[in-house]
Amino acid sequence: MYSLGIDYGTNSCRSLLIDLTNGTELGSAVFPYPSGEMGILLDPKNPHVARQNPQDYLDGLVHIVTTAIAQAKAANPAFDPAAIVGIGLDTTGSTPIPVNQAGTPLGLLPEFADNLNAMVWLWKDHTAHAEAAEITQLGNEQRPHIMAKCGGIYSSEWFWSKILRLRRIDPTVFAAAFSFVEHCDWLTAELSGNTDPLTLKRSVCAAGHKALFSTEWGGLPDKEFLAQLHPDLADLRDRLFSEAHTSDTKAGDLCPAWAEKLGLKPGIAIAVGAFDAHMGAVGAGIKAGTLVKILGTSTCDLMIAPTDKPLADIPGVCGIVKGSVLPGFYGIEAGQSAVGDLFLWLVNHIVPESYGTTIGEKFTNMEKAMATQKPGTSGLLALDWNNGNRTILVDVQLTGLLLGQTLHTDAHEIYRAYIEATAFGALTIIKRVEEYGVTIDEVINTGGLSIKNHTLMQIYADVIGKPMKVSQSEQTCALGAAIFGAAAAGIDTIGNLQKRVTATRDLVFHPIPENQAIYAELYTLYRTLHDAFGTASWQGSLHPIMKRLLEIRSRP
Amino acid sequence: MYSLGIDYGTNSCRSLLIDLTNGTELGSAVFPYPSGEMGILLDPKNPHVARQNPQDYLDGLVHIVTTAIAQAKAANPAFDPAAIVGIGLDTTGSTPIPVNQAGTPLGLLPEFADNLNAMVWLWKDHTAHAEAAEITQLGNEQRPHIMAKCGGIYSSEWFWSKILRLRRIDPTVFAAAFSFVEHCDWLTAELSGNTDPLTLKRSVCAAGHKALFSTEWGGLPDKEFLAQLHPDLADLRDRLFSEAHTSDTKAGDLCPAWAEKLGLKPGIAIAVGAFDAHMGAVGAGIKAGTLVKILGTSTCDLMIAPTDKPLADIPGVCGIVKGSVLPGFYGIEAGQSAVGDLFLWLVNHIVPESYGTTIGEKFTNMEKAMATQKPGTSGLLALDWNNGNRTILVDVQLTGLLLGQTLHTDAHEIYRAYIEATAFGALTIIKRVEEYGVTIDEVINTGGLSIKNHTLMQIYADVIGKPMKVSQSEQTCALGAAIFGAAAAGIDTIGNLQKRVTATRDLVFHPIPENQAIYAELYTLYRTLHDAFGTASWQGSLHPIMKRLLEIRSRP
Repeated sequence: MYSLGIDYGTNSCRSLLIDLTNGTELGSAVFPYPSGEMGILLDPKNPHVARQNPQDYLDGLVHIVTTAIAQAKAANPAFDPAAIVGIGLDTTGSTPIPVNQAGTPLGLLPEFADNLNAMVWLWKDHTAHAEAAEITQLGNEQRPHIMAKCGGIYSSEWFWSKILRLRRIDPTVFAAAFSFVEHCDWLTAELSGNTDPLTLKRSVCAAGHKALFSTEWGGLPDKEFLAQLHPDLADLRDRLFSEAHTSDTKAGDLCPAWAEKLGLKPGIAIAVGAFDAHMGAVGAGIKAGTLVKILGTSTCDLMIAPTDKPLADIPGVCGIVKGSVLPGFYGIEAGQSAVGDLFLWLVNHIVPESYGTTIGEKFTNMEKAMATQKPGTSGLLALDWNNGNRTILVDVQLTGLLLGQTLHTDAHEIYRAYIEATAFGALTIIKRVEEYGVTIDEVINTGGLSIKNHTLMQIYADVIGKPMKVSQSEQTCALGAAIFGAAAAGIDTIGNLQKRVTATRDLVFHPIPENQAIYAELYTLYRTLHDAFGTASWQGSLHPIMKRLLEIRSRP
Repeated sequence: MYSLGIDYGTNSCRSLLIDLTNGTELGSAVFPYPSGEMGILLDPKNPHVARQNPQDYLDGLVHIVTTAIAQAKAANPAFDPAAIVGIGLDTTGSTPIPVNQAGTPLGLLPEFADNLNAMVWLWKDHTAHAEAAEITQLGNEQRPHIMAKCGGIYSSEWFWSKILRLRRIDPTVFAAAFSFVEHCDWLTAELSGNTDPLTLKRSVCAAGHKALFSTEWGGLPDKEFLAQLHPDLADLRDRLFSEAHTSDTKAGDLCPAWAEKLGLKPGIAIAVGAFDAHMGAVGAGIKAGTLVKILGTSTCDLMIAPTDKPLADIPGVCGIVKGSVLPGFYGIEAGQSAVGDLFLWLVNHIVPESYGTTIGEKFTNMEKAMATQKPGTSGLLALDWNNGNRTILVDVQLTGLLLGQTLHTDAHEIYRAYIEATAFGALTIIKRVEEYGVTIDEVINTGGLSIKNHTLMQIYADVIGKPMKVSQSEQTCALGAAIFGAAAAGIDTIGNLQKRVTATRDLVFHPIPENQAIYAELYTLYRTLHDAFGTASWQGSLHPIMKRLLEIRSRP
């Protein structure tokens, strides 16, 4: 038996066809979105605009599924696509699509073909920052219990900000939009042949994390609240949804039309969609006690906590949503605003060519140069806030900090200080959730940095003080989606499927006690800086910090 | 009439022969010290060791004086060396020399030729840091009125630290040393033919700034105090000096032996020596109301205040010594630990080759890149403490800080932030002395940075809010020495001589009001960081800092 995972990223989509007995990858294909710039429709007049063409998703789907099946057949002529039992699907988010009453994206209609506002509003579209601020303010004043679940700040990247923005800037498109559907919900609806906005199965992951949906307060925010943002939003509420589902639920059965296009058997299970990071956490092997860290340009951190015990609001996390990762568990999302991006900034802007001429050479030689240095010997300390702080301060109005420089400080020492800063940031998140009763026994890392950068992984182990594991698969999102496809087909529980098809690598990074001891001291200093610059209530003295760093570096 | 100025620097010595009617430079020669590494005797086992060979000083003196005279003759065959009326001389300091009873440096004696401890202890020798700490502690406990005149901290670079160190590590050399003479005093004694340590004329500049000498407390520190450091220091006090002189005083008349070696008329006036920065301030045109800033790897800041009004101790300045710059005035010395060195660190360690392949190209292109940027547009703020803070915190246990970085921060923006940080540091010194009643109306800058770097000079004008002038002469130290040579010869007063032979350049950098307004805001933020990290007593909040910087950068 096989399952298909489909992962829609920011610039391309990818398929993964796996054997459900052991996770063997039989086929995988990538389709870069042809529209716009690397798949993103831009507005030269406004750098915050980031839209997508829904047609790219449909074209990509056909290509990546048929190619993966062809690969499987090429490797084993006996391979029979009829043994594929289900399809799971993840996307970026919040990536809402304005649709007509039939559930067709407005961007696919000829009359809106040239209107960016009718297209898909990609997660990284930041045009709605004013609307986000408005929702944040009103929410905290009037619905604090709702805002508490998203760390007290509603983002410009999220569902309601974007819809309110559309209403403000383009009433025509808004009026033509019968409803709005998240990217992950529209595609599962398409595959199942029912795109009716009122009945298609919505993802609790998308609804809970981005649309302020919870059964605790009767679904979406109430009309009275929405009407204060705009009366049309209150009306819209009736044309959205009142239920949302975990991804082990079937969104429907594969409809004959799509079965034919994809070369699959009609009627196989289509799992309810979810966001990439959440399904990626499942593909990485998340369970109670595991933190999955997706190390990319920024990080997404996912943890779960059983729903049979009460879980307090955890200040500063991005969201706590029942079932958003696994049914029966709260999904807890946190994140760091810049990790890979921070290192790329460094290497592109302030690392001289004495370390090499390419980015790769510079990183390699900086790693070599720091290999012989013990923690604390540079005397440097940094804050990892060059792109603000997502968790636990939830503040985009923060910037980077580096201290401890002398007249001999080298670029590779600064690089190490920034790696350490991201590790301290990661530890701060872990300490916060542990403080609120969530247990973390191990960290499973995914993403390019976790595979390539052993120096970084060892520093993370030493700073965090827990074993750092690395996911076996490099396609954890698509793998997670395939697991949900099989679960929706009723093949087995998520837990059993994870045991069969997910794994971590043999190389585990364990904390080195003498490094841990130094990092514990450095973390105290980091935390002082973090609280001093990041919180309004901090009181204390910074006078000892530079002296402590000099004392630590002077030790034999 | 002509005068000769002799300037002994760290790596070379230089002569300047001037016409006393208008300051015309008739001849000037440089002699790099041949011994050691760029004139410095090093110890491969101890990086703090920096000694010099006294023979280099003697050889250099002959070369630079005879060459300058030859230049003057070559340009004008009618030039007559007999019209040279006096010689002034400055050196680095504190640069003490152990001498025998005849005043001969021990390093010139065959039995000590291979012993670094018998050589000249150059100003930058830092081997005596433990002894400096000991003197600081004892001084503050028992002689706080003495310590108050040197900012409360006695340096490892200074007279007593070095002598105590020598006693501890090499009793043989110490026992052979009848006395100790500063570099600037030994050479004037040599020229005048009287090197008797008990009667040669000592410089009040050297004695006051480095040896804790003041007539207020009876000369050098009392025996009881010195005995607690080491009984031999109390004994030594009798073989040092009880008087010290300003540099308009004659140290003696040029002796026939040296007159012959140099090609000069015997009997001309030799002025009492002083330190380079102090004579440089006179050569730059210092007067009441003028701050002379010598912008080099670090800075030396000199101001004067009339002795006919009482002057309070000014916390944090390097020293306040009656007559150390000009007779009739207190000389006030302050300084910044790293200015040129800070920019060199930056360009050598963290500026990529996209700005050019040489140091010069990188500086030029960074200046070009920042030329179009208004103050505040980078969002960056730095502390200029990569080499500690000399004034007003007097704390070597401080390090650098840079904050406000985003994922787009460029190296030239960091360079600008460091220029601004040194300007804020300069302003902090000015504010401190003004607070204690010293008036500053204008700043005259000297040194390579002030001539070459117009961007820096304009930023200094905008930050400090006073006109920035630049000394006409590039050899202000030697020029100042020549002025003292003429004054000691009784030709005229220092003030009149300054009017005739010193000048500032036509290009004056005036504050631009709109830049001044932004820098006034940024200085408040700098001062908050300065006090937060630099003082134990600070209380307040740093939370607004990053937000204020973002707000300032976001202005149209």
